[in-house]
Amino acid sequence: MTRDLTVTEVRLTPILVADPPLLNTQGVHQPYTPRLIVEVVTADGVTGLGETYGDTKYLELARPLADRLTGRQITDVNALFGLDIAVDPARVDSSVDVGGLRGVLSADKLRLSVLSAFEVACLDALGKALGLPVHALLGGKVRDSVEYSAYLFYKWAGHPKGVAGEKDDWGAALDPAGVVEQARRFKERHGFTSFKLKGGVFPPEQEIAAVRALADAFPGHPLRLDPNGAWSVETSLRVAAELGGLLEYLEDPALGTPAMAEVAARTDVPLATNMCVTTFAEIEEAFTRGAVQVVLSDHHYWGGLRNTQRLAAICHAFGVGVSMHSNTHLGISLAAMTHVAATVADLDHACDSHYPWQSEDVLAERLTFTGGRIAVSDAPGLGVELDRDELARLHRRWTEDDGALRDRDDAAAMRVAEPDWVTPTMPRW
Amino acid sequence: MTRDLTVTEVRLTPILVADPPLLNTQGVHQPYTPRLIVEVVTADGVTGLGETYGDTKYLELARPLADRLTGRQITDVNALFGLDIAVDPARVDSSVDVGGLRGVLSADKLRLSVLSAFEVACLDALGKALGLPVHALLGGKVRDSVEYSAYLFYKWAGHPKGVAGEKDDWGAALDPAGVVEQARRFKERHGFTSFKLKGGVFPPEQEIAAVRALADAFPGHPLRLDPNGAWSVETSLRVAAELGGLLEYLEDPALGTPAMAEVAARTDVPLATNMCVTTFAEIEEAFTRGAVQVVLSDHHYWGGLRNTQRLAAICHAFGVGVSMHSNTHLGISLAAMTHVAATVADLDHACDSHYPWQSEDVLAERLTFTGGRIAVSDAPGLGVELDRDELARLHRRWTEDDGALRDRDDAAAMRVAEPDWVTPTMPRW
Repeated sequence: MTRDLTVTEVRLTPILVADPPLLNTQGVHQPYTPRLIVEVVTADGVTGLGETYGDTKYLELARPLADRLTGRQITDVNALFGLDIAVDPARVDSSVDVGGLRGVLSADKLRLSVLSAFEVACLDALGKALGLPVHALLGGKVRDSVEYSAYLFYKWAGHPKGVAGEKDDWGAALDPAGVVEQARRFKERHGFTSFKLKGGVFPPEQEIAAVRALADAFPGHPLRLDPNGAWSVETSLRVAAELGGLLEYLEDPALGTPAMAEVAARTDVPLATNMCVTTFAEIEEAFTRGAVQVVLSDHHYWGGLRNTQRLAAICHAFGVGVSMHSNTHLGISLAAMTHVAATVADLDHACDSHYPWQSEDVLAERLTFTGGRIAVSDAPGLGVELDRDELARLHRRWTEDDGALRDRDDAAAMRVAEPDWVTPTMPRW
Repeated sequence: MTRDLTVTEVRLTPILVADPPLLNTQGVHQPYTPRLIVEVVTADGVTGLGETYGDTKYLELARPLADRLTGRQITDVNALFGLDIAVDPARVDSSVDVGGLRGVLSADKLRLSVLSAFEVACLDALGKALGLPVHALLGGKVRDSVEYSAYLFYKWAGHPKGVAGEKDDWGAALDPAGVVEQARRFKERHGFTSFKLKGGVFPPEQEIAAVRALADAFPGHPLRLDPNGAWSVETSLRVAAELGGLLEYLEDPALGTPAMAEVAARTDVPLATNMCVTTFAEIEEAFTRGAVQVVLSDHHYWGGLRNTQRLAAICHAFGVGVSMHSNTHLGISLAAMTHVAATVADLDHACDSHYPWQSEDVLAERLTFTGGRIAVSDAPGLGVELDRDELARLHRRWTEDDGALRDRDDAAAMRVAEPDWVTPTMPRW
């Protein structure tokens, strides 16, 4: 064959992408959030796309990795995980990422989070070079579409006064009625039939009321509540007792495996996590203690699509369910999530996705949800195309930022509106 | 792309292949052992090769699976694992396979053992169609050669009188001197530097003496002993105490996870297994009980090469080592083992292979060990070619067999020499 799969160039483009004022227990989303777009170019001129977190610490690692990728084959992915890429200890000394919203922060996890974008870009390029969809490179799809869940947030109508930011048409959602209205719109616009509420924002009673209102408005629809570890064990158990019959699962009610294990031991409500199990190193303790019943994989954390399949296999072997977590992400990652999700037979829960909240994307054509599902593309690679003008525009925004937004900090964003805001001590309730 | 990856034909060829009179705790190898050769042919005329166990129960499942594969894409492998292929309950009601030598026998394991040959054949065909080696389809190799261990057996000089069978030039090995001589020849012929002795044949004292003789003859070479679960917990502990400092690991000293866990709790000698963990369903108990420190994967049992990678990921997450087991197999499977082993970063032990014992093969060119290693092929697919004449000859042998050899039965083979032989009750010592 004359095909040349050698990587000749790796382009790294940090961008700032609009994000609505979504609330969580740490604070509020910044008006713009950093992402990194990775392009891997082969000798034949094929370009593969990847996407990951864009905070400074990820960018710092991405550059040396890009240099090491150049000259290799795009099929040569496993070896990337063995590259000795140094991580600045100062970047991981806080031990948690974004106030804990992304779970632990370790050098390995940082490395995997960056590698994931390269793995996806290599798979995309390989698929394009061979004329095969990414799912086929992963052993083939077992379903033609992947179900996603509506990701409901408490939110303000707009970003704080004086803050530059894009407007959105979602309005405020700060009480049960607002949450139900938001869910109704999610269903109308995208057809979602399962709902996840990001909690930990208001005292548990208010969030219990919101879930009850959702259950009344959407009978029979799977519901989830995720306070990002804001509750004590006792509070978690109280919420579980009150909402038990209504919840598909409760996500990270309490912080850390020991607390989750204690909750799990005393309730029948399944517990899901994207906080206490975000690395392979955390699996053994959590699984042997029965701390979690569903792991929500984020392919960025776990090091890409093949590692996500491996995580799913581990979960399967231990009778733990698997689904997918989402942080703010764009269409490249949504496409990647959809391809890998299509290959995992026992993905029994609708996946999370922030994508409907993102009014901006770097794709020429946005991905669309139909009946709450994304159709699995059979086009070569991920099946998405870059909009270079839009990429350039969002990169310009990053370039012009004075640094204030280049590292996501929900507490800092909250302090703009509430100057006295301090990162809450957990458990908050 | 105009390439057509549709499966248009699946050829199944059962064969009988020569096997020397190798002894184990169940009896002796038959003079000929059944294997199944799978050929998957695409619309473009590309042929992919696979190989698996050839006993009747595997053949029975292979036919309906072959029919279901026809018309599908060779990339469409994950979906095969969801096919509802019925397994005759009578075929698995004994609960163990070949007297337990292959571990439990369940409908799922039987299905996976057959599917593995189809998965490998599809990967081989895909690699050939795309001009990529199989390891590249699995994410790429992380090493250029894979180390194997010499697989030492107690053996007779020849098959029992009156039994048709091929002659071999290895001679007898029935005492420490014979074992050392066999090891020396293995090293001379193939360059192996680690040795595994199949035990459970003679009382433990004799096998301890054989290991000591090996240690004296080959100082510093990793040694293993595998009695196939023939020992009680106490005997296992006694052998572990006597050979502790000499062994890389002890393989399946006692039968079943509870006994292995008891041994593991009372010795520092690592325990390996290919008997108590041969399915995903057996992992949780064995790992949470700390029953095994190394899992020896047999890609046939586990359902192919991607599943082997997943097993390795599970082992990694639980701090359990991984290497590869071998039953009697030919070059197609050795090539498949080598490709997947090349992709597993933390494969820390030399793999087992019976291949040097196989004087016959269906390959146009045999694979060769250099310095105990097989070079990882970068040729398209597995990198091996079929010898159709030899395949036809070995199939003719199968066709002409009256059925006596079509199901491997080491105890029956032993009864030819020792009419009173009964399958030993375990633990034997």
